[in-house]
Amino acid sequence: MSTPIPAELLSVGTELLRGEIVDTNAGYIAAQLPLLGIELQRMSTCGDNLDYLRDVLQQALGRATVVITSGGLGPTEDDLTREAIAATLGETLTIDPELEKNLRMMFSRSGREMPPHNIKQAMVIPSAKALPNPRGTAPGWWVEKNGKVIVTLPGPPREMTTMWQNEVIPRLKARFPMKPILARTVKTFFVAEATVAQLMEPFFSIDNPTLGIYAKPDGIQVRLIAHGDNAKELLDESEQKIRNLLSAYVWGKDDDTLAGLVGKWLINKNLTLATIEDMTGGLLADAITSTAESRNYYHGGLIATNDHAKISGGVPVEIIGKHGAVSAEVAEAMAVTVRTSLATDIGVSVTGITGAESKQPGLVFIGIADSHGSKTWQQQYQVGRADTRERVAIAALFRLRERLIELKLDV
Amino acid sequence: MSTPIPAELLSVGTELLRGEIVDTNAGYIAAQLPLLGIELQRMSTCGDNLDYLRDVLQQALGRATVVITSGGLGPTEDDLTREAIAATLGETLTIDPELEKNLRMMFSRSGREMPPHNIKQAMVIPSAKALPNPRGTAPGWWVEKNGKVIVTLPGPPREMTTMWQNEVIPRLKARFPMKPILARTVKTFFVAEATVAQLMEPFFSIDNPTLGIYAKPDGIQVRLIAHGDNAKELLDESEQKIRNLLSAYVWGKDDDTLAGLVGKWLINKNLTLATIEDMTGGLLADAITSTAESRNYYHGGLIATNDHAKISGGVPVEIIGKHGAVSAEVAEAMAVTVRTSLATDIGVSVTGITGAESKQPGLVFIGIADSHGSKTWQQQYQVGRADTRERVAIAALFRLRERLIELKLDV
Repeated sequence: MSTPIPAELLSVGTELLRGEIVDTNAGYIAAQLPLLGIELQRMSTCGDNLDYLRDVLQQALGRATVVITSGGLGPTEDDLTREAIAATLGETLTIDPELEKNLRMMFSRSGREMPPHNIKQAMVIPSAKALPNPRGTAPGWWVEKNGKVIVTLPGPPREMTTMWQNEVIPRLKARFPMKPILARTVKTFFVAEATVAQLMEPFFSIDNPTLGIYAKPDGIQVRLIAHGDNAKELLDESEQKIRNLLSAYVWGKDDDTLAGLVGKWLINKNLTLATIEDMTGGLLADAITSTAESRNYYHGGLIATNDHAKISGGVPVEIIGKHGAVSAEVAEAMAVTVRTSLATDIGVSVTGITGAESKQPGLVFIGIADSHGSKTWQQQYQVGRADTRERVAIAALFRLRERLIELKLDV
Repeated sequence: MSTPIPAELLSVGTELLRGEIVDTNAGYIAAQLPLLGIELQRMSTCGDNLDYLRDVLQQALGRATVVITSGGLGPTEDDLTREAIAATLGETLTIDPELEKNLRMMFSRSGREMPPHNIKQAMVIPSAKALPNPRGTAPGWWVEKNGKVIVTLPGPPREMTTMWQNEVIPRLKARFPMKPILARTVKTFFVAEATVAQLMEPFFSIDNPTLGIYAKPDGIQVRLIAHGDNAKELLDESEQKIRNLLSAYVWGKDDDTLAGLVGKWLINKNLTLATIEDMTGGLLADAITSTAESRNYYHGGLIATNDHAKISGGVPVEIIGKHGAVSAEVAEAMAVTVRTSLATDIGVSVTGITGAESKQPGLVFIGIADSHGSKTWQQQYQVGRADTRERVAIAALFRLRERLIELKLDV
């Protein structure tokens, strides 16, 4: 295993410093680098100011082998990344005839004349090779000089990610060949981050694989990164240990989603699903329908965020009157009713209270009705978190998974 | 107007450099500073490495008057922000008896013994005042030395934002008193960013207010920031000019949401609403039910993401057979049907195609049925964008707003 290549990342744009747009590029690139054997050591964000940019670039090149920039490639006077790199390297910007031709063609194809200042986007320095940008007018740069590499990317995330995947990854792999680096993520639910951290303690002293713990809306994730020729074996072995330690909390790994896994089981068993939701107000349906396959098993849902809607949906008014809308009885009646009215094999319900004004804010009931009967779960959520509704929707999917396992319907 | 106070922001944590967690703190703080008269000039992200942290802190203190850090205040050996500040200022960390008492109390209250290494979190340097953290064990610091201010905040966003609001804003205002700085945001929909940019051209040469243009899922926003004693008048005047230029595209300002505005109109006119959605699969219902007031006018909705669900909901099978599920006719039938079945004044429908596999991906129909009849709109969306479903849901709300205006139901 060679040592990781040190890198720095520079995000360019005054709008980032004013908090007017969120820098999603930095996180995206940061997450990509470990798998390329590149170690990000610093990230900086700088406004549209030539002196500051030069200063940051110069320092970054002094420390790192790879410097990646994003943003500042637009056509206006404020877009100064090209100028700053040229100045830092002591090179001169000139118009590249090929790039100019492409640029003019792009404008004429969309029936517009190229504004004069756009010519900036056809400029390069001698050390730079242009990286094509199929989604915009600003080409990127791949610069090699004095053993250092500068990668210059456009700011708009769609342009950046396309260029990163198509142009940058292959070049980085060719320029810095390395032993395999692999990652694996084990996904859990209904377990606290502190508990996972405690159970994972034995791993913290291990260098290969390294282990990280991350809280996401769909639960706590454990990520392993291994390097070397036996990286896959190391991951397999560690994954098994983690599964043994976390046992029932583990629901999937890597790109698995709860909705995707549950959907696969339903398709395999030829079962259909309907939902009815209060509180989550559409987020349970949204999670389910975010996969294209859901058309095959999801026969629709009801949003029933007040008594009127629950009663229209078929929930008996007496049950609501007797137990209150947020109760195990109503959750059960909702699940049974939606299963009947949409004629599906399984009905899932959510009812709960978000508002701090209610008697028991954060109280949630989840119900599932199927051919074996029905079942409800009571849960208590923290109030005032922006993602509570999303967490409750995912909890309902997790309960559905539990129920499918209980009925031995898993595959 | 005094010149803005120069500031830098330092996010601490190796997990940020590996892209394992997204740094939401930096954007939050960046967006807060302009209104305090503080100009963020650089943001940096640094790993849990004492030398790097000292280096970045030293440089930041050389350039800026205010340096804000977030993260690195945990109890483990990797949490080094306190140590780095102490080293940079040449001061010594000692245990503060009051902080230690609080910390031990916090642990005993939750029935746990304090792990020995947590004592770090009770340490301060002579120049630092501890900032209470009601949501966690790590106090922040307010450090004043040689005319510079260092604000040290915990990394977890809930802890950070609470401390920022309660402890940091009042101290920054007292330490750097200034003339008013005010912001105003004008919100538009169904207009391209480039068009807005072109229409706003006359504003770009103006210093006060400054103008920024930002693309959000609910449309293009124009943000104005004005300073000085007549800041409010400047904003009022500019807002009027912008409204004249953008006319029908403007739907609200500042904290307005489409769902909130439409909801207010419905409550005032005592009208009720039902929805039925394909494609958006719950996101329209979610947008509506994200306001607590929706209980008063929203009588529920259907998720109908396949023909089966549409037919169960009451859409005539012949209409689907004749025109296809994604058609103006089906959108109309859906809106009419849901209005009838849920017995509301207004029914809104969405039907559309997400998948690239279909004949016309991105094609969407929105329907509205009310006591005056029904109306449909056809729209074409770009395929493959992560936020298309969200944009379509917001478009449906925008069409509902249009329809309420057309029927002279606005207030």
